[in-house]
Amino acid sequence: MSSGGSDLGEFELIRRFFQRPCAPGAGVILGIGDDAALLEVPPGTQLVAAVDTIVEGRHFPEKTDARSVGHRALAVNLSDLAAMGATPAWATLALTMPSVDIDWLESFAAGLLELADAHGVALVGGDTTRGPLTISVQVMGHVPRGTALRRDGARAGDLLAVTGTLGDAGAGLAFVKTPPPPETRLAALELIRRFDYPAPRVQFGLAARGIATAAMDLSDGLVGDLPKLAQASGLAAHVVVERLPLSEAMRAAVPGPQARDWALAAGDDYELLLAVPAPRYTDLRAAADQLNLTLCVIGEFREGNGVTWSLNGGDFVPSARGWDHFA
Amino acid sequence: MSSGGSDLGEFELIRRFFQRPCAPGAGVILGIGDDAALLEVPPGTQLVAAVDTIVEGRHFPEKTDARSVGHRALAVNLSDLAAMGATPAWATLALTMPSVDIDWLESFAAGLLELADAHGVALVGGDTTRGPLTISVQVMGHVPRGTALRRDGARAGDLLAVTGTLGDAGAGLAFVKTPPPPETRLAALELIRRFDYPAPRVQFGLAARGIATAAMDLSDGLVGDLPKLAQASGLAAHVVVERLPLSEAMRAAVPGPQARDWALAAGDDYELLLAVPAPRYTDLRAAADQLNLTLCVIGEFREGNGVTWSLNGGDFVPSARGWDHFA
Repeated sequence: MSSGGSDLGEFELIRRFFQRPCAPGAGVILGIGDDAALLEVPPGTQLVAAVDTIVEGRHFPEKTDARSVGHRALAVNLSDLAAMGATPAWATLALTMPSVDIDWLESFAAGLLELADAHGVALVGGDTTRGPLTISVQVMGHVPRGTALRRDGARAGDLLAVTGTLGDAGAGLAFVKTPPPPETRLAALELIRRFDYPAPRVQFGLAARGIATAAMDLSDGLVGDLPKLAQASGLAAHVVVERLPLSEAMRAAVPGPQARDWALAAGDDYELLLAVPAPRYTDLRAAADQLNLTLCVIGEFREGNGVTWSLNGGDFVPSARGWDHFA
Repeated sequence: MSSGGSDLGEFELIRRFFQRPCAPGAGVILGIGDDAALLEVPPGTQLVAAVDTIVEGRHFPEKTDARSVGHRALAVNLSDLAAMGATPAWATLALTMPSVDIDWLESFAAGLLELADAHGVALVGGDTTRGPLTISVQVMGHVPRGTALRRDGARAGDLLAVTGTLGDAGAGLAFVKTPPPPETRLAALELIRRFDYPAPRVQFGLAARGIATAAMDLSDGLVGDLPKLAQASGLAAHVVVERLPLSEAMRAAVPGPQARDWALAAGDDYELLLAVPAPRYTDLRAAADQLNLTLCVIGEFREGNGVTWSLNGGDFVPSARGWDHFA
């Protein structure tokens, strides 16, 4: 829709910041630079693909450090692969930004590529366009045929387990917006770090294959996400709210009821929610221990439908709903 | 970043407009509704993946019919697969839009899904977010191992061929912005249709495997794209400008020099540019004939680098540059 030119065009832009030699064995026959990427999916596996978009002002505050934005754009997608028990392999990037800001791009690329390297992911395609800051990443990975963790595999009686701690990212975001009092500053910084640099549970997802019966990642908060898992499996779920795992930082930074609300509904935790048969829980726990990851049983699956909650033996109704991108 | 809710949340939105049963044999084990899609790549093939984003006001004018936007979002990606000679199989959609407009969504989905059906593509994942209208589609397909059409395979002496006619979409866009005089109205409508509903040359890409030595799709105009093809193959290219194929509608609607400029540089044509050894040209032509597609030789590849142009026997320097997304 225009035929002018700039010194640093789209093609050069992508090449300069995102094109790197791929590690041998990464299955990349052709990466960035042709019309499409050409990839070798290992024999005996199924392809796993996910896409997630993050928008400035909606999924991260304006003026967020570009390194965090790059990290987040890939992390939210790796979290989806983790929830499938898939090995990440490749990613494509669709980057829409208001202008070409070299410093911003360098920092964004560093955040994205560091996380990519940590998980053996090759960036194999990209597209840059001018517009309001919006980043879509699609990741592709693979699982041995028939071993993917799905949402529909939970069985009545399975335990409901969750990795890590809940609510930290929500608390961190709150502290980005409203700086904490001096006495909780250190704890707040840790919570902000949890918001800025979510850690997708890829290794644990791999370890959970063959043990967990169902899994999903917690991106929209337990209150928003658990009903989806229960419904996909055709079951009810019950949560014992006092079991929700809270971090030291969270306990130090805010009063209990606020911590509980964030743990229930704040979203952006990118922990894994899993169904596991009680006799296999020790195996799952051992896998978590090996990764230095906490794992908690917070409830169970039951015949029926819907999610019920209890707090200290009494019925409980969460006041907050999960994160809805069209709220 | 918010815990409110709306009656039609993200999840319901995607399901309502885009979730459909997949045809058996489409290789979709899990489509929309889990954390990620689970897909069967046919044995003996390589995966081909491409991503392209379109932004309102940048890749299509504001108030463009939503059906055209849905068509375009997939078409520009299918064109990339066509250029690789790949069989399209799956797509994911990242849709960012300012508000939930049911009429718009219905029409957008119809445009996208009609084209998907025409090419046997299953929509296997999606993500909707609120923001300025931006649509990223990633398509995945496959080619028998080692048969993909790449940009780097042209050889000196190969003919440079192009499908269809050039410049029509650029002319169409011009007529969207500035309505034509009454006497060229019919021709202009045809050119506008070419802009609004680009036809990715998927079938021809498949037929060109094993005949063409290199290919790419023309999205940014010949002046912008051909240098990339030549450079990838380490060659020079020469174009005989009077051979550029112009449609009847183009000839009827505008004077020759304007038609030539659009054919050279306007972009959005989504035709295929191919290198083919002279002895194989009749085979490529036969494949085009079978698809009722025109195919023209417009030049050749030579030792060296860069692109040269001639018009009626004399040297020629195109005045317009190709479409640059950061122009």
